[in-house]
Amino acid sequence: MFTPSPLRWNEMNDLNKVIEEALKLVEPLKEEIDHVKALASIAFEKVSKIASDSEFKPSVILGGSYAKGTWLKGEADIDIFVKFPKELEREELEKHGLDIALKSMRDYNPILRYSEHPYVEACIEDVKINVVPCYDVKKGEWKSAADRSPYHTEFMVKALNDDLRREVRILKKFMKGIGVYGAEIATQGFSGYVCEVLAIKYGSFLSTLKSASKWIERELISLDKVDEEFKKLFPQAGIIILDPVDRKRNLGTAISQKRLAEFILASRFFLEKPSMDYFINKKDYSLKKLEKSDLLENIVILKFKHSKRSIDILWGQLKRSLNHILKQLAINDFKVVRANCATDEIENSAFIFLMERIDQPSIDIKIGPKVFRYDDSKKFIDKNMKTSKIIWLGDDARLYSVIERRVKSLNDFFYNLTHAPKGGSGIAPGLIDDLTNTYEVYIGKDSFKIASSFPWLARELVKIVSSDKILIE
Amino acid sequence: MFTPSPLRWNEMNDLNKVIEEALKLVEPLKEEIDHVKALASIAFEKVSKIASDSEFKPSVILGGSYAKGTWLKGEADIDIFVKFPKELEREELEKHGLDIALKSMRDYNPILRYSEHPYVEACIEDVKINVVPCYDVKKGEWKSAADRSPYHTEFMVKALNDDLRREVRILKKFMKGIGVYGAEIATQGFSGYVCEVLAIKYGSFLSTLKSASKWIERELISLDKVDEEFKKLFPQAGIIILDPVDRKRNLGTAISQKRLAEFILASRFFLEKPSMDYFINKKDYSLKKLEKSDLLENIVILKFKHSKRSIDILWGQLKRSLNHILKQLAINDFKVVRANCATDEIENSAFIFLMERIDQPSIDIKIGPKVFRYDDSKKFIDKNMKTSKIIWLGDDARLYSVIERRVKSLNDFFYNLTHAPKGGSGIAPGLIDDLTNTYEVYIGKDSFKIASSFPWLARELVKIVSSDKILIE
Repeated sequence: MFTPSPLRWNEMNDLNKVIEEALKLVEPLKEEIDHVKALASIAFEKVSKIASDSEFKPSVILGGSYAKGTWLKGEADIDIFVKFPKELEREELEKHGLDIALKSMRDYNPILRYSEHPYVEACIEDVKINVVPCYDVKKGEWKSAADRSPYHTEFMVKALNDDLRREVRILKKFMKGIGVYGAEIATQGFSGYVCEVLAIKYGSFLSTLKSASKWIERELISLDKVDEEFKKLFPQAGIIILDPVDRKRNLGTAISQKRLAEFILASRFFLEKPSMDYFINKKDYSLKKLEKSDLLENIVILKFKHSKRSIDILWGQLKRSLNHILKQLAINDFKVVRANCATDEIENSAFIFLMERIDQPSIDIKIGPKVFRYDDSKKFIDKNMKTSKIIWLGDDARLYSVIERRVKSLNDFFYNLTHAPKGGSGIAPGLIDDLTNTYEVYIGKDSFKIASSFPWLARELVKIVSSDKILIE
Repeated sequence: MFTPSPLRWNEMNDLNKVIEEALKLVEPLKEEIDHVKALASIAFEKVSKIASDSEFKPSVILGGSYAKGTWLKGEADIDIFVKFPKELEREELEKHGLDIALKSMRDYNPILRYSEHPYVEACIEDVKINVVPCYDVKKGEWKSAADRSPYHTEFMVKALNDDLRREVRILKKFMKGIGVYGAEIATQGFSGYVCEVLAIKYGSFLSTLKSASKWIERELISLDKVDEEFKKLFPQAGIIILDPVDRKRNLGTAISQKRLAEFILASRFFLEKPSMDYFINKKDYSLKKLEKSDLLENIVILKFKHSKRSIDILWGQLKRSLNHILKQLAINDFKVVRANCATDEIENSAFIFLMERIDQPSIDIKIGPKVFRYDDSKKFIDKNMKTSKIIWLGDDARLYSVIERRVKSLNDFFYNLTHAPKGGSGIAPGLIDDLTNTYEVYIGKDSFKIASSFPWLARELVKIVSSDKILIE
């Protein structure tokens, strides 16, 4: 096991200086705090008023990073939970919940959003307000995914003090800076709540990084004492971060291995050489410097249009479909180096592939049974005799044949993929028709041209033919 | 397990007719028998005379297919064994043995040949004479590979009767016709002795084929009763045929899986549809019909010159070297469909490869460790940061990098192979210098051109881009 060497004095000094500097970026000034407080008060009043007029008289409480006092300077979110009796049907909850939310926010351009449950987003002045219906349940008796949130707020309000809130803020900012912040499926990174749990577990931003730099595969993180046996409950997890209000829940499930790995590496690099760069996400997705990359020749873009849908649903469909396409490419001997989804989150999406090579050999090799297996070898010969370019016995007593390759190009491949019999394509059912009707394939330098017209596509193309930022900074 | 359906009457009739016809091809007429007998007598006298004049007074005996009466019409071989006292040093045996052999055959253009042991080949009129020195040892106390031969002769002379000799001859002719006859390393097929053992074991040519058509992997064939435990003595063997004069010896070792498989398939096909074609090796290695084969584009020939050496030694070196080159090609991501050696058995040889594709992608993918392994991931990053086109974290938390491919072409590959540090190439040491100094690489259509000038090369090229004859007849 690796043990990092103890930091020397001047390094310690650097670290403290950088953290002090970062602190200035993350702590809201009194002015901002007062302003957000005032807006929260307005929003809370509005929702409470409408709720008390409604049939079920749901209780209303504040939540999220505002209530916990862990929001980042200039980025306050105010969550307002509307708690309905647990006997209510799910459909009724959604209907009445959204009704209250939309009515109360009607002056602030409310929009409907979905994740596991629907909720309403609005803006009062420069602050985002989320009004979220949920059930008023006892701890552990969750009926919807949002029911835990009030308990999270309650837990953190008790567990955090001013010192810890400061550490949470620095940790969040660091995660944002390196691009691993956010639990939504587009990012699959660390949620604000996870940042809070980590800060409590390790005591500070710096201790969190020191620990993360040494995290092992399937690290188990829990605020309560818990033995390693617990891991068995989460056989697939890359990291296990137990929710302090629900020990059966792994907060790490939402974190992809890539984001986890990025955080671990960034922790190591930051501790080695602290820098403000880690706190500032310097986006640079300019296509220009890419123009002469010879890797562009190996790029394939499958672009398509689709109907509008919730962002989280869209990302889920894209990621599932990408995984399926990758499997199919492998089956067809196309070797993919790297792949990604890209989307404008409205009506255009694409899959981007960096291939080992764009073309296919014209021949395909079929490996048959050993001749000792009478029936199988007879079948192989009967089946392949006429369609084979050649058929022969190998040095291992197996039958072999060479046939003309069926899927001869990526264009062939994508045609077959999008024209597979219903349900056979493996593409997310909600996407397959859109994909089949609108897909376009761009290969090699053409991928650069098409990306020039779409910034969202350009960004992912640049990412895929560049080193990960975390590794080159 | 497969059980062939019982033959119907007219099929049985066909079979018998074909076998009757084949019999005419294999049994020598009285005239030939008398002629060979006379020549054997001359040769035997010559060797005996010289032997009795020599220091160790070795005894002389007749052996081989002549002595056993199993030679094929027009193809008699006369083996004469010169048996020396077992106390003699190996070097002395070879010196005195060859001295006697060369002297006795001096009027018949004797040539020196080597397999495990040196011997002398000569021709009296149209019949080949082999004079082979060996030790006069008790059964089982073998000192050289040839010592068993007199016991083989003795055994077969007792075991075979006229009926069985006829069956052996048909079996040999069948094996010759389908190209699996001959134990020498160039062929790695069935020896005459193995044919005799099989005919005794199964009772007839037809029974041998019926059994062979159902042979399983690692079939155990023994004239004596022996249990399956015996197989453990030969863990690597594809087929186990126990030598009746030495049960610890597997005659199947000399038979390659390919030849074994060819014999099995041919047995099945012949039983299904008997034909004289199986007894007549219709060689057709004309390059012409190949000219328009698109597989030629995927051919690579590595041709070279070398010093003269014993044919068996040459074939051994070629086959070992080919195996090594195949391993190296695989390591370098070159996918070989089929490969073979070719040689004029004098001073020109070549390796022929049918490739899935001739070219290589320009990039190479390096798969690194998971980031959880601190030291390994640090090493990977330090090592690849500068030389990589891109370096990134995969979805599996592994590090990856893309580098410029080092071995960019087959020409590169063969250059590296032939210029590896001494002993590092894996090519047979006796060949490597010849190969390095004289190799030429022919790719695609050029392989056709070079093969046009060399019949021995043309033959193997035709074989490699054609179906196995056994499968298309």
